[in-house]
Amino acid sequence: MRRIVTLLGATGSVGRSARDVIAENPDRLAIGVVVGGRDAEALAKVAIETGASFAALADPQAGRALADALAGTGIANGAGRSAVLEAVAMPSDIVVSAISGAAGLEATFAALTPGRIIALANKESLVCAGAAVMARAQIVGARIVPLDSEHNALFQVLGSEPISSIRSMTLTASGGPFRTWSAEQIADARLEQALAHPNYAMGAKITIDSASMMNKGLELIEACFLFGLEPAQLEVLVHPQQIVHGLVTFRDGSVSAGLALPDMRVAAAHCLGVDARLDAPPARFLDLAMTAPLTFERPDLQRFPALGLAMAALEQGGAMPVILNAANEVAVAAYIEGRIGFAGIPALVEAVCSRADAGMAAPVDVATALAIDQEARKRARQLLSQAVFAVT
Amino acid sequence: MRRIVTLLGATGSVGRSARDVIAENPDRLAIGVVVGGRDAEALAKVAIETGASFAALADPQAGRALADALAGTGIANGAGRSAVLEAVAMPSDIVVSAISGAAGLEATFAALTPGRIIALANKESLVCAGAAVMARAQIVGARIVPLDSEHNALFQVLGSEPISSIRSMTLTASGGPFRTWSAEQIADARLEQALAHPNYAMGAKITIDSASMMNKGLELIEACFLFGLEPAQLEVLVHPQQIVHGLVTFRDGSVSAGLALPDMRVAAAHCLGVDARLDAPPARFLDLAMTAPLTFERPDLQRFPALGLAMAALEQGGAMPVILNAANEVAVAAYIEGRIGFAGIPALVEAVCSRADAGMAAPVDVATALAIDQEARKRARQLLSQAVFAVT
Repeated sequence: MRRIVTLLGATGSVGRSARDVIAENPDRLAIGVVVGGRDAEALAKVAIETGASFAALADPQAGRALADALAGTGIANGAGRSAVLEAVAMPSDIVVSAISGAAGLEATFAALTPGRIIALANKESLVCAGAAVMARAQIVGARIVPLDSEHNALFQVLGSEPISSIRSMTLTASGGPFRTWSAEQIADARLEQALAHPNYAMGAKITIDSASMMNKGLELIEACFLFGLEPAQLEVLVHPQQIVHGLVTFRDGSVSAGLALPDMRVAAAHCLGVDARLDAPPARFLDLAMTAPLTFERPDLQRFPALGLAMAALEQGGAMPVILNAANEVAVAAYIEGRIGFAGIPALVEAVCSRADAGMAAPVDVATALAIDQEARKRARQLLSQAVFAVT
Repeated sequence: MRRIVTLLGATGSVGRSARDVIAENPDRLAIGVVVGGRDAEALAKVAIETGASFAALADPQAGRALADALAGTGIANGAGRSAVLEAVAMPSDIVVSAISGAAGLEATFAALTPGRIIALANKESLVCAGAAVMARAQIVGARIVPLDSEHNALFQVLGSEPISSIRSMTLTASGGPFRTWSAEQIADARLEQALAHPNYAMGAKITIDSASMMNKGLELIEACFLFGLEPAQLEVLVHPQQIVHGLVTFRDGSVSAGLALPDMRVAAAHCLGVDARLDAPPARFLDLAMTAPLTFERPDLQRFPALGLAMAALEQGGAMPVILNAANEVAVAAYIEGRIGFAGIPALVEAVCSRADAGMAAPVDVATALAIDQEARKRARQLLSQAVFAVT
């Protein structure tokens, strides 16, 4: 059986990994629809290379450029919100959800149709509307398979074990470029230092989140919704070699761990071959005899306060994860623009979260999630204009 | 539901681990029958402590001593082969099969009755009659759950994945007390040196097999039958920390690993709680942040020829694994008695295997397996009397 894939976020790093896996397995997988953000030329190239029948861009301004780039190819195309939703509505077996940000949340929700597999890489879907997305998937009979390395590893080793068997789940973190830096050094880290991730080439936002460890905090929140655990059951271990991605500790003392080379194609291959693993490996195989010794250490919440803020938001629950995520997006953008220092990122997030209404309920749908998100961003921008967050 | 357990090998190290787990979970597990080898006093003590209703010893000579030790307790008892088979025939939900040697093979085969779970620690069952035992279990509807740390780890992480998804399975080995020794040092190793296992306190035979790495070779053979793999799909990695016990590498590049502290109670707890993990942990939980770095290296078949011999016997198939195992038992006994040096163990095994009929078919039942075993032992003892194997 050949599975038809809808690729949301086709031109990003996750999209590229998925395309690599699909290209190596032409008898098992084919791309039907590709969706990108803004880059018409890149998306047109992907659409032509993958033999897609429809291409859509989120940015309505880029519609003309896309139409020009695809002229004469016979590939239908469109741009803007309605084109993206039209793309998502086209029939397919698997939707790779890798549009980042709020646009990805709406598209993911729309992709939840009966019998579909959603290979989920869009963080906002679970961080901002985790309960709503999981319930919707359950009701319509869609199946969410996580595409992030850590969640994918946990998903694989959990298998059909009941959640009640779990004592705890551990997500590993590389520790990022500042793993061995002092708090003072981290506070003054320059942008190019924060962008130097030791293992993965990813977008700027997620790379900076890795450096602050906010990324791992957001992943903890995702894992909590994905697996239905209590916040206290989730923990983080820093593991610089990035070979072990996640561990499930069972109540009886056994531990199952998911390992892979630090290559996004491995998790992509699992998602795209779920229930019938793909024959062709997407990369070379892990050889532990050729790997550096595997080490693990507890994260330092003093030097990486963003992780502690995320854990606190998860513990508080309600709308707090949405607010945390929105404040962090504003803070990271401000850091990239040079408006605040690296220490300003957790400082701004903390300021927004501490001023937010702790009793606000978790959003029950996408519209509510987006409204809370927008309000928190507005509040973050207001605080950002205060002198205390300026670069010293 | 309280599961009733039959404990074969109740006084050995595996039996003790199982008793510890059962004692900590009185609402879930109860011991019905205990079976031991020769030690009447030890078995009587275990029977009284565990509240067993029946106790049997394999050694018919020890029957009187057992009856005396249990006088007035109301615990029925017997000794000899028929008493052991009577014990196995008594109804129970789980049979822990931990009698070592040929006696364990017959008892394990007899324990395969509809709906029963066999927590299997008796090596001979799979090494000497793997195909017959697996087929019998399938036909009668019994379920074999491996109790060895390595096989248990592999069983757990495999879950419900189809065997066709597997690229390879890796069993880890501590490397034993001679891991860093030269071939010359190993050749002259004294008995007390071979008995100094770094992580586990076990019986003399298995400890010496760990030192020669024949134990890992026998485990490879077991794994081959247990999981239905090709010999070439199995490999060994030396992992001195003994935290990772087994790894499954899937065709798509993902790897799942089973971890636990080096404590036999963890695997025992999994087997005794299979399908509904036990609540109470049998030991402290693994904490990777408090563990030494995890290292892995390929085994050195030059210094540990016994492992290579076992791999060759597995590759040859037919009756060769039975012959290898029998020759090794004779060789280890001779080493313990001081009749041969440590290098004499693989030398004798190789001599017996190379003289054996390579075309002999795998045994189809226990009687045939035992006949091949006896013939190989006889041949090993004959060769042993030759000057070449004497201690130099």
